[in-house]
Amino acid sequence: MKAVALLSGGLDSTTLAYYLRSKYDAELTCLSFDYGQRHKRELRAAKEIAEELGAEHHTVELRVQVPPLEHLVTKGLGYILGGSALTDESVPVPDGHYAEESMKQTIVPNRNAIMLSIAYGVAVARGAEMVAFAAHSGDHAIYPDCRPEFVEYLNLALRTGNTWATPQPDLVGPFLHMTKSDIAGMARDLAVPIERTWSCYKGEEYHCGVCGTCYERREAFEEAGIVDPTYYVDNTTRFAAPS
Amino acid sequence: MKAVALLSGGLDSTTLAYYLRSKYDAELTCLSFDYGQRHKRELRAAKEIAEELGAEHHTVELRVQVPPLEHLVTKGLGYILGGSALTDESVPVPDGHYAEESMKQTIVPNRNAIMLSIAYGVAVARGAEMVAFAAHSGDHAIYPDCRPEFVEYLNLALRTGNTWATPQPDLVGPFLHMTKSDIAGMARDLAVPIERTWSCYKGEEYHCGVCGTCYERREAFEEAGIVDPTYYVDNTTRFAAPS
Repeated sequence: MKAVALLSGGLDSTTLAYYLRSKYDAELTCLSFDYGQRHKRELRAAKEIAEELGAEHHTVELRVQVPPLEHLVTKGLGYILGGSALTDESVPVPDGHYAEESMKQTIVPNRNAIMLSIAYGVAVARGAEMVAFAAHSGDHAIYPDCRPEFVEYLNLALRTGNTWATPQPDLVGPFLHMTKSDIAGMARDLAVPIERTWSCYKGEEYHCGVCGTCYERREAFEEAGIVDPTYYVDNTTRFAAPS
Repeated sequence: MKAVALLSGGLDSTTLAYYLRSKYDAELTCLSFDYGQRHKRELRAAKEIAEELGAEHHTVELRVQVPPLEHLVTKGLGYILGGSALTDESVPVPDGHYAEESMKQTIVPNRNAIMLSIAYGVAVARGAEMVAFAAHSGDHAIYPDCRPEFVEYLNLALRTGNTWATPQPDLVGPFLHMTKSDIAGMARDLAVPIERTWSCYKGEEYHCGVCGTCYERREAFEEAGIVDPTYYVDNTTRFAAPS
């Protein structure tokens, strides 16, 4: 079975790739996206993970030409998607629990529809049956484009827009009804190289430990009863910095 | 009213931009896309037209990093969207009537969903009420992503994915039930600078006159009883080459 999967290099999408390989023996094409996010660090993780899996991998660059400069200047697409903390250096990444109101600052408008539409086009071109992404139930509070009804409607739209394709890929979110700690448990069971995954929104050399996504990552391992192999720079970690 | 419109630089999307300005006095953001199409010539037309309209304009670049080369090489996104005649130099652009079976070679999988998803994200960021594109009834035969049901479902999906946005933009296709000759008539009535628009898929310096989209362009002017100001290189034109 051929499948196209979004792979950010984080815990969820990495586990998804291993899950697709394990469950369907899928011939995987993994896509990562450079849209001008400050945590480009994740793209390095994605590349390494795809290599480890032996999966086809592409990084898609979304950029925009910025007028009216005389010499062509391009910036990440995030530049015209508004002031998200993930793409605008002047908006600080909020610390705290990932379900707090402040985390709405990390919304990049319509990001999942953009990435999934591109993945769907690639799936049609590859003759793949499935386009998968790793949204989970913990994402629903903040991100409406991680909810089951969004996936259902977008699948309907994309199938309708590609009636000529054979096969017609289905857009799926296998983790939509799982929690992040369920995913952490699955990662352990599938021997996912957790230490290679990257979550932190701040995109420094190590995980900050205090932003929403670091918070969520730590909580997931704790709830799943898994020893967290991540080095966090906030000094609460039990591990030394990797050399 | 703020609106975001896809502007390829062709007759249809140019007329749409003039229509939105005329009907709604819209504060327009126009988006063009470089996805590796061979007719990049259209992007120059789009830029000129947006300038003429005094509209904000951005060219979005969709590119993909191509492994496994040692030095980073990027190509247009079309590279991984399969062998469309529009993006693959090895597939010739078919000549003939635009509704023929051969025109399916010009399909770029999921192109409209990709462009509209990006435009929708920009609309949310800009506080726009509308995302518009110029699909018309003549497109329906070949391109399922130009049909009313596709627009309806995609609108539903994108609104569902952005419930937090105020306002929630609506995806619209004002020309969905018009023919291209209706659009040509509207272009005349709105004093659209038709001579600046670009249709030809081959992307040479002048319109070829014989590919599907040139065929359709000529037919539309003829049916609308409008003198076609375009220079076509196939020698059947009544005009001399522009100097």
